[in-house]
Amino acid sequence: MEYRRIKDQDKNEAAVIDDLESRPAVMDGILPKSDGKIGDKSKWKLKTVVTLALTFLTSSQAILIVWSKRAGKYDYSVTTANFLVEALKCALSLAALTRLWRTDGVTEDNRLSTTFDEVSVYPIPAALYLVKNLLQYYIFAYVDAPGYQILKNLNIISTGILYRIILKRKLSEIQWAAFILLCAGCTTAQLNPSSDHVLQTPFQGWIMAIVMALLSGFAGVYTEAIIKKRPSRNINVQNFWLYVFGMAFNAVAILVQDFDAVMNKGFFHGYSLITVLMIVNHALSGIAVSMVMKYADNIVKVYSTSVAMLLTAVVSVFLFNFHLSLAFFLGSTVVSVSVYMHSIGKLQRTLA
Amino acid sequence: MEYRRIKDQDKNEAAVIDDLESRPAVMDGILPKSDGKIGDKSKWKLKTVVTLALTFLTSSQAILIVWSKRAGKYDYSVTTANFLVEALKCALSLAALTRLWRTDGVTEDNRLSTTFDEVSVYPIPAALYLVKNLLQYYIFAYVDAPGYQILKNLNIISTGILYRIILKRKLSEIQWAAFILLCAGCTTAQLNPSSDHVLQTPFQGWIMAIVMALLSGFAGVYTEAIIKKRPSRNINVQNFWLYVFGMAFNAVAILVQDFDAVMNKGFFHGYSLITVLMIVNHALSGIAVSMVMKYADNIVKVYSTSVAMLLTAVVSVFLFNFHLSLAFFLGSTVVSVSVYMHSIGKLQRTLA
Repeated sequence: MEYRRIKDQDKNEAAVIDDLESRPAVMDGILPKSDGKIGDKSKWKLKTVVTLALTFLTSSQAILIVWSKRAGKYDYSVTTANFLVEALKCALSLAALTRLWRTDGVTEDNRLSTTFDEVSVYPIPAALYLVKNLLQYYIFAYVDAPGYQILKNLNIISTGILYRIILKRKLSEIQWAAFILLCAGCTTAQLNPSSDHVLQTPFQGWIMAIVMALLSGFAGVYTEAIIKKRPSRNINVQNFWLYVFGMAFNAVAILVQDFDAVMNKGFFHGYSLITVLMIVNHALSGIAVSMVMKYADNIVKVYSTSVAMLLTAVVSVFLFNFHLSLAFFLGSTVVSVSVYMHSIGKLQRTLA
Repeated sequence: MEYRRIKDQDKNEAAVIDDLESRPAVMDGILPKSDGKIGDKSKWKLKTVVTLALTFLTSSQAILIVWSKRAGKYDYSVTTANFLVEALKCALSLAALTRLWRTDGVTEDNRLSTTFDEVSVYPIPAALYLVKNLLQYYIFAYVDAPGYQILKNLNIISTGILYRIILKRKLSEIQWAAFILLCAGCTTAQLNPSSDHVLQTPFQGWIMAIVMALLSGFAGVYTEAIIKKRPSRNINVQNFWLYVFGMAFNAVAILVQDFDAVMNKGFFHGYSLITVLMIVNHALSGIAVSMVMKYADNIVKVYSTSVAMLLTAVVSVFLFNFHLSLAFFLGSTVVSVSVYMHSIGKLQRTLA
């Protein structure tokens, strides 16, 4: 995999911006147009490629999960698999960097060594995800699994709100309307005859769901803030440090949750071909998410994964003889209109 | 009930326009702003009042239907009730006219006498509705009643398309997107666990549903064309002639369908207080629809009746202990965003 960098455009930005909180809107469509037309075009291309890659990988990830569930239960330790995902991402980032060092040489932007100032914020997203994953065990006391799938769509709204508050980016009114539709459309597409149970969720369940949505949204937005804080910094270096902390947190999770299983049955017990495929897929998806954060934003990420959810269902019709519900068609229609409106809204911002 | 007229604004329009087909956009937001600000304001007020009246009446109509179903079966002849609705509308239009003649005197615009040219198109909407109601008996061979409720939302799309083609009015891209959302949102709000049956509708059922949607949309759009063809013409005169033909067509329906029942059991057999309330409500709703056609348009009518559908459900929670489904909340959200987008789209057209 080859990762290209956008140098020219972001140079002056990098000089001005060093405080996260006071950072104004940075990306295209919000910034005044840069002079280099070729730069804009290649940036647009890059953005499209990483977005499509994320959509494809997220979709195939969901299909692998369905496949693995059909093949049998998970009989491997999930924590070891998560650790390997982080390790693989680390290795891939290093491989890309080695290649780059050979062609471009080591520069200020692509060297691996870092300062405490730069690296001190990197553990935060991993820590947020850890807290969120811990909460996940407790929420099932109040909500069943299909209900949790429905409530997870709150992530869409929380991401939008935190994107606005923390990154101080503005969405146009039409884009906000589109975002509400995205949430409603995704939820509609997932409706099934037992979905109404979720309305009986007790108050504590709602609070936990909202807190989890905020944690997840905050982790996403914070990752974007970290990655974009120094736009000229090579993404592979940034990824490397993010994933190093990911490995560390997951190592702790292995010790806490699966120490006995790993000791008695071995690190790789219960691994199969599909487990390996899922690890590779998760690693590539993770890298794609970072790329989207670097070259696009959290909003694009949310759209990308939402569309992937719909794609997964359509592909599952052919692969697993799934039946599409009327609710799925209606939800997909609403999501499609939402995607259209988001692009219209962006266009209007650019023209304005 | 008092019906006010908009004279000044439409005078020049009326002079220019006499051919339906070549008629350009007429109503506010599409026309360049008129000089008289007071005229614009009172027009806007009138539009709001008739729209709210239609929403309220449609909503209470649905509630009366639920109430009457709970009270027992329909044991009166539906055709006689329909005839009385038309007769009552005729009487109300005449009453309003008599009042007007007493204050303003008889003018070219409010006199009841008419020309063949003017009146020749008035039977067409009634005829279209008759054909649609006949088809309704046959479609139940292919679709069950809840499925038919779902398919009826195709009316929304057909009205939008025919509004564009026949009245040659333009909707902005955002307004089109809003219209698709309105259809998806209304359908979502009506989803229930057995809604998926509708996807098994055979080909003939779909064709009939589409034809019925087109007939219904065409009748609505054609009525608007008739009523707006001569904007200065008093709405009560226009209504009178529309309803006269409505009475005639419904008299035929009584003869064809319920002749024996009426002869043996009498015209008013099985009537109860609730039947009378329903007839009064239908009559007032019918007049409100005409008013919306005159002072607003079919698009406003569709929005008004859709919002009424949602209101009905909310009111039914209190009246009949209905439970609102998750699908209802999602559908309502989508409809709300649609209403917002429609107004934003209108604003943008006006500003452009």
